[in-house]
Amino acid sequence: MTTEQWRSARLHNLLERWQCTRQIGCTQLVAGPTNSISDVAGVRVGHVTLAEGDVQTGVTAIVPNADNLFASPLCAGAAVLNGFAKPMGLTQLDELGILQTPIMLTNTFSVGRVYTGLVRYMLEQAPEAGREQATINPLVLECNDGYLNDQQAFAVSETMVHDALAAANTSFERGSVGAGRGMSCFGLKGGIGTSSRYIHQLDATLGVLVLANFGRLSALRLDGMALSEWIEPCLTQPTAQRDAGSIIIVMAIDAPLSARQLKRIAKRAGAGLGRLGSYWGHGSGDIALAFSTASQPCHDVDDSHIEELLCASAEGCEFAVLDALLQATPVQGFRGHSRSTLSDVLDKLAAQHGLSH
Amino acid sequence: MTTEQWRSARLHNLLERWQCTRQIGCTQLVAGPTNSISDVAGVRVGHVTLAEGDVQTGVTAIVPNADNLFASPLCAGAAVLNGFAKPMGLTQLDELGILQTPIMLTNTFSVGRVYTGLVRYMLEQAPEAGREQATINPLVLECNDGYLNDQQAFAVSETMVHDALAAANTSFERGSVGAGRGMSCFGLKGGIGTSSRYIHQLDATLGVLVLANFGRLSALRLDGMALSEWIEPCLTQPTAQRDAGSIIIVMAIDAPLSARQLKRIAKRAGAGLGRLGSYWGHGSGDIALAFSTASQPCHDVDDSHIEELLCASAEGCEFAVLDALLQATPVQGFRGHSRSTLSDVLDKLAAQHGLSH
Amino acid sequence: MTTEQWRSARLHNLLERWQCTRQIGCTQLVAGPTNSISDVAGVRVGHVTLAEGDVQTGVTAIVPNADNLFASPLCAGAAVLNGFAKPMGLTQLDELGILQTPIMLTNTFSVGRVYTGLVRYMLEQAPEAGREQATINPLVLECNDGYLNDQQAFAVSETMVHDALAAANTSFERGSVGAGRGMSCFGLKGGIGTSSRYIHQLDATLGVLVLANFGRLSALRLDGMALSEWIEPCLTQPTAQRDAGSIIIVMAIDAPLSARQLKRIAKRAGAGLGRLGSYWGHGSGDIALAFSTASQPCHDVDDSHIEELLCASAEGCEFAVLDALLQATPVQGFRGHSRSTLSDVLDKLAAQHGLSH
Amino acid sequence: MTTEQWRSARLHNLLERWQCTRQIGCTQLVAGPTNSISDVAGVRVGHVTLAEGDVQTGVTAIVPNADNLFASPLCAGAAVLNGFAKPMGLTQLDELGILQTPIMLTNTFSVGRVYTGLVRYMLEQAPEAGREQATINPLVLECNDGYLNDQQAFAVSETMVHDALAAANTSFERGSVGAGRGMSCFGLKGGIGTSSRYIHQLDATLGVLVLANFGRLSALRLDGMALSEWIEPCLTQPTAQRDAGSIIIVMAIDAPLSARQLKRIAKRAGAGLGRLGSYWGHGSGDIALAFSTASQPCHDVDDSHIEELLCASAEGCEFAVLDALLQATPVQGFRGHSRSTLSDVLDKLAAQHGLSH
Repeated sequence: MTTEQWRSARLHNLLERWQCTRQIGCTQLVAGPTNSISDVAGVRVGHVTLAEGDVQTGVTAIVPNADNLFASPLCAGAAVLNGFAKPMGLTQLDELGILQTPIMLTNTFSVGRVYTGLVRYMLEQAPEAGREQATINPLVLECNDGYLNDQQAFAVSETMVHDALAAANTSFERGSVGAGRGMSCFGLKGGIGTSSRYIHQLDATLGVLVLANFGRLSALRLDGMALSEWIEPCLTQPTAQRDAGSIIIVMAIDAPLSARQLKRIAKRAGAGLGRLGSYWGHGSGDIALAFSTASQPCHDVDDSHIEELLCASAEGCEFAVLDALLQATPVQGFRGHSRSTLSDVLDKLAAQHGLSH
Repeated sequence: MTTEQWRSARLHNLLERWQCTRQIGCTQLVAGPTNSISDVAGVRVGHVTLAEGDVQTGVTAIVPNADNLFASPLCAGAAVLNGFAKPMGLTQLDELGILQTPIMLTNTFSVGRVYTGLVRYMLEQAPEAGREQATINPLVLECNDGYLNDQQAFAVSETMVHDALAAANTSFERGSVGAGRGMSCFGLKGGIGTSSRYIHQLDATLGVLVLANFGRLSALRLDGMALSEWIEPCLTQPTAQRDAGSIIIVMAIDAPLSARQLKRIAKRAGAGLGRLGSYWGHGSGDIALAFSTASQPCHDVDDSHIEELLCASAEGCEFAVLDALLQATPVQGFRGHSRSTLSDVLDKLAAQHGLSH
Repeated sequence: MTTEQWRSARLHNLLERWQCTRQIGCTQLVAGPTNSISDVAGVRVGHVTLAEGDVQTGVTAIVPNADNLFASPLCAGAAVLNGFAKPMGLTQLDELGILQTPIMLTNTFSVGRVYTGLVRYMLEQAPEAGREQATINPLVLECNDGYLNDQQAFAVSETMVHDALAAANTSFERGSVGAGRGMSCFGLKGGIGTSSRYIHQLDATLGVLVLANFGRLSALRLDGMALSEWIEPCLTQPTAQRDAGSIIIVMAIDAPLSARQLKRIAKRAGAGLGRLGSYWGHGSGDIALAFSTASQPCHDVDDSHIEELLCASAEGCEFAVLDALLQATPVQGFRGHSRSTLSDVLDKLAAQHGLSH
Repeated sequence: MTTEQWRSARLHNLLERWQCTRQIGCTQLVAGPTNSISDVAGVRVGHVTLAEGDVQTGVTAIVPNADNLFASPLCAGAAVLNGFAKPMGLTQLDELGILQTPIMLTNTFSVGRVYTGLVRYMLEQAPEAGREQATINPLVLECNDGYLNDQQAFAVSETMVHDALAAANTSFERGSVGAGRGMSCFGLKGGIGTSSRYIHQLDATLGVLVLANFGRLSALRLDGMALSEWIEPCLTQPTAQRDAGSIIIVMAIDAPLSARQLKRIAKRAGAGLGRLGSYWGHGSGDIALAFSTASQPCHDVDDSHIEELLCASAEGCEFAVLDALLQATPVQGFRGHSRSTLSDVLDKLAAQHGLSH
C-alpha cells in the first residue's frame, strides 16, 4: 500500500464514521446517557445568542446544581494551560477552592459587562453581599471571537446574564450558539461542545462543556491524522496559520473531591487538547475548570480513584471539542468573514473521493 | 521603668514624631524627592472621587510613562499574597510578563465597569484591537469599600475611567480620594498612600502606590508597638476585629528588569505589610504588582543588584501604608458608618496624655 | 525627650526584658505550656550535632505523631517565600498535599546523604517501598552554614539520619545544636528556635520550629527597633551586609486542615519574618511548611477559623526566630570564623549603658 | 471497509513504517541532522549502565555547552506536569531561572547519591562554592525503575556521576541504557529517547532527550491508534494497567530566551505526551525542563517567534518518546520481571498478520 493509498483509506474511514459524530476519537471510557455535561445531575446550560450582521456573539451560562451558590458554594479548581486570557474570578477560586456563582462564558470585550450582570444577579440571592456580607467572586471566562464578531460593538449587555441564566436547561443547543456563536477552531467554525464520561469505580460522572476557539488548521489531527492539506482547499476563506484563539473547558463531577484534586483533574484537559494537535499556542487562552457537585466541606477522595478521573478529563475534553466542531453551523459576520464547518468540509471531501455516506 | 512607664514613653515619642508624617518607620533607604510613585520619571496618578451620602467611592488611575502601552508594553510582574480578591488582568500578566494598559483601582463591584471603560479607552490608541490585532488585557484591581460605601449603588460608570486617566498628574492627592475614598485600614480610615526609595547601586528609584483597605486594629503595630488598646477608645465607632479588607500595592521602577525579577520584587510588599502587623488575613485580597519603565525587550538585571530592590520594596510598601493612614481625612457614608483617622486618634491621645506637639 | 534619649529608653527597656526570653515581641496570642513545637501532641525533635574544628554542623529531625507515615501520611502544605534553596520533597508534597516521612534539616551539601539515609530509615517501616509499593518522598530541608562550617568536609553521613530520629524527644535543645550548629542569623549566631500558640476558637495548638540562618544585621528589628548601629560594635567579627542565608520554618497543628489551608498558613511565616526586618533576601532560601497531626482524609476546616491560624503562624514564626537568637551559644569554626550571640551583645550593651538586669 | 478491515489496514501501514523508526508520528517540523539533542551545538550525553541480575539501572548526564556552568550559568525554565516526583533543584531553578550544573538522571532512590556526586564534581570547577561563594544547585531528576531494578540495592554510587559526565559525547546510545536501563513505558520497555526540530524563523534548533517510564498500555496511541488489544497478547509478561511511572523531558535550544519563555516551552511537552495517550497519570512524575545555550543575561525573544518553539516542543517530545520505545532492547531484572520491546511486539504482529517488512 502506498502512502497515498494509505491516507486515502484513512480518510475514507474517517468519512464513513463522521456522521456518527460520537464515534470519532478513541473512547476508552463509557459516555453518560446524553454524552453531555448535564449527565451530571442538576447541571444546566443556557444561551443568549446575538446574530445580526457584524454582531455574531453571545453569552453562555453553566449553572451547577446548587440553589444558592453564594450561601452554599461548591468545591472547585482551575488550571491555566496558557494564560493569554482575561478570565475573571480565578485568583479567588485558586485561594479558596470554591465556586460561588454560575460560570459565564462570553467574548473578550464583554467580560466587564457580564461581570456586572453576574454581580447583580447574585444580589437577588444575597442582598447583603458587599454590605454586611463579603463580596461575590463572579466567574466569567472568555474567548476572542473578533474574526466573526465585531467586539467593538459591545453588543453584550449586563442584562443578558439574566437571560442566559433564565434559559438554563439540562437540554441545550451546541455549536454556533451563545458565547460560541462567533468562535473559530482550527480554522473551522468552533463554538460550544459537550461530552461526559462515566467512572465505574466511583459511580461518578464527569461532564465537560467547552467554548472552542483555538488551534491552527495545520496542526489539527483527527483520529491521529493531520488533515490540513485536504481540508484547506475546501475552505470558503483562507485561514491564518496561528494558534491565537482560546479554549475554555468546564467540568462538573458528581463525586466529592477537594480543590487540590479538582485542579489536577482540570489540568488534564491539556492532554486532551494535545491529542487534537494543539500545543496550547502562545496567543491562546487555554483555561480549564472543574467543580464538584457534592456538598461541602471539600475533602479528598481516596487518591486511588483519581487516575480514572484524570483519564476521563483528557478524553472528555478531546471529545467535547470534536462535538463543537461537528455541531457547528456556518456563520458569516464581521467584515464578511466566514468559517466553514467540519461537517461541510467532510461532505466535500466525501464527494471529491466519490464516497457515499 | 515599669511597663506602663515604658509604653507611655514610647507613645510619647511616637506622638512627637507623628506630625512629621514621613518619619515613622525605620528608614534604611533614602526616599526620592517627593517620596511618591511619581519620583519614577513619567509615572502619573489621577482620581475620580464620588462622595455623596451613601456613595463614598471612586476610581484611581496609575499611568506609566509610555505613550501607547498597547503598542509598547512594559515589563511587569505580580504577586498574590492572599487571593481573596477579584483582580482583572493578572492571568495574562503572569504568562507574558507585560503591562499593556494603565492600572485602574476601584471598589469590588465596579471592576466590570472599569474593565469596559478601560477597553474603550485603549481602543482610541489601538483601533484594530480585538479586530485585526489581538485583544487588550485591561488591568483593574479592587478593594471592598462596602463599610463606608454602598457598592450596590453601582455608582462608578464606564466613562469615569476616562476622567481618572485625564486627571493623571505627577502631583496627586492621597488619603480619602479616588478609589481610596471609602477604604478602611486597621479599623481606621485608609485609602491612597505613596512613597519612593532610591537605590544607589542601580541609580534607580522604586516608587510605590497603595490602595490600603486591610488589617485589624488589634494587629496594628506602629514602630513595633501594638497600639490597639490605646486607639480603640478613641474611635468614633467600634471596629470589627477581622482582617477582611484588602490592599493593592503598585510599584514602578526605572531600571530594566525581567518579569521574573519584577515578580520577586512585588512579592516583598508582603514583608512590609508584616511589619505593620498584617498577617495577610483570610478575607483580604493582598496583591502587589511591579513594572519597569525601561523599554523592551525585558531582560534580567544582574542579580547582585536585586537585594537592594527587595529591601526597597518591603520598606516602600510599609511606608506607603503609613502615608495612606496619615493622609486620610474622615469619611462618613453608607448606613451612617464612619472611620476615624490615625491623625485624629493620635491628637486625642496626645491631649489625654497632656503632650503638646 | 530627644531622639537619643528615646532610643536609650527603648534599649533600656529591651535589655530589661531580654533575659525573660519569652517576652520580646508583641504577643497577641497565648503560648502553649512549653512554648515549643512539642506542645502539639506527639511531635518530637532530635539532633545530631558535629562540633569539632572546621566541622560545625549537624542534623535535626522533626518527627510527627504518626507511627508509620508511609502507611498513614499526614496532610501538609508548603510555601516558598524565596527559592534560593535546595529542598527535597516539595514537588510531591505540593501535588499530593501529604507528608510521608519525618522532616530532616541539615546543611546544603548534606542534603543528598540525608535523603539516602531517610529512604533507608523508611524502608524499615515499608519494606516493599520502591518495589511492589510506590517510592518514598523524603522531606529534607537545608540552610547554608558555610561561614562557620566547612561543608566541603561532607561530615554528615547517611546513618546520622537514624541517630537524629532515635534521639527525638518532646524535650529538646535549641540554639547551636543539630542542623543549627553552624547557622548565622542577622550577623549573629542563629540555629534552632521554637514556639507555640494556642488558638482558642479551634481548641488547637500551632507549634513552630525554625532553622534560622537568614537576615542582614542592618535590617534587624527587635520590638520595632533597628539596632544594628549598637550591635555592630559589639561583634567579635564584622558581618557581611547581605541577606544570603536561609530559614526553614516547620509548623505542626493539631486541627484537621486541608493541604490548601495548610499552605496558606505556612505562607504567613513570611509576615513574621518581615516583622524582624527580613525582606526575604535574594540569596536566602526561605521555606515554610505546615502539617496537621489529625488523621486523613484531609478536609477543609471552616474558613471562619482560619484567620486566627494565620495570625498564629506569623507571630509564632517571629517568636521562634527570636528564640533561636536568644538560645544560641557562641560557635567558632571554619577558618576561624565565629559569631557572637544576641545574649552576649545585649549584655555588653547593658554594661556600656550601666544597666543592671 | 469494515472496522476490522480498517484497523487491519492501519496496523499494516504502521508496521510497514515502523522499521523506519523516524517516520511514526505526524511531523510538521523538520528534524535536525541527527534528530537528537546533540543537534544543539555543544550538548553532549553520557551514560553509566548497571546491568547485572536484580540491578538494572544507571545514570545519564546531559551536559550543556558551557565549560563552567557555576561561573556561567544558562537560562532555564521547568514545568511540573504532574508532581508525583522527587526532583532536586527545581525550586531554585524556578526562582532564579538559571541552570548551574549538568542535568543528571537516575532512579528514584539514587537521587541522594547523585546529588552528592554532582556537588563534588562541581567543586572541581568551583573550589570556593559553599565557602566564600554561594552553594551549588545540583539538578537531579528521576524515574522509578522498581519493576525491573531493585532500587533497594542502592547500586548507584556518588562516583558514577563523574563517570557519566566523563562519558558525555555528542554521539550517544539510546534505549535501555544509563538511567533508562530499567525503565518501562506503556507496559513496554522504555528508556532514553531523543529528537530535534529545526525552527526556520529563528534559525534555531530545539533538541529533546527523554527518560521515558510512564503510561499505561491501554492508553497508548500510535499514530492515533489505540493498540493495546493487539499488543497485550504479544507481551512476555502481563502489565499493570496504571500510569504510575514518570517521564523526564529535557530540552536544549540554541536561541536566546528568558526563563519565562523557556518555562512555557518546557510545558508543551505535556501536549506531546497527550498525543501518545498519556493523561499525566496520578502516580507519574512528569517533569519538563528547557534551557537555552545562548549566553547570559537572559532576555525575551520576540514573542512572535514563540509559537513555533511551542509546536516544536510538543512534537519533539512526542517523537523522543517514540524513539525511546523503538530503541529499547529487552531487559530482564528484579524478581525475574521483564519488559517486551515495541519492536518485538510489532514484529510478532507482522508475523501474525502475514506481513513482510
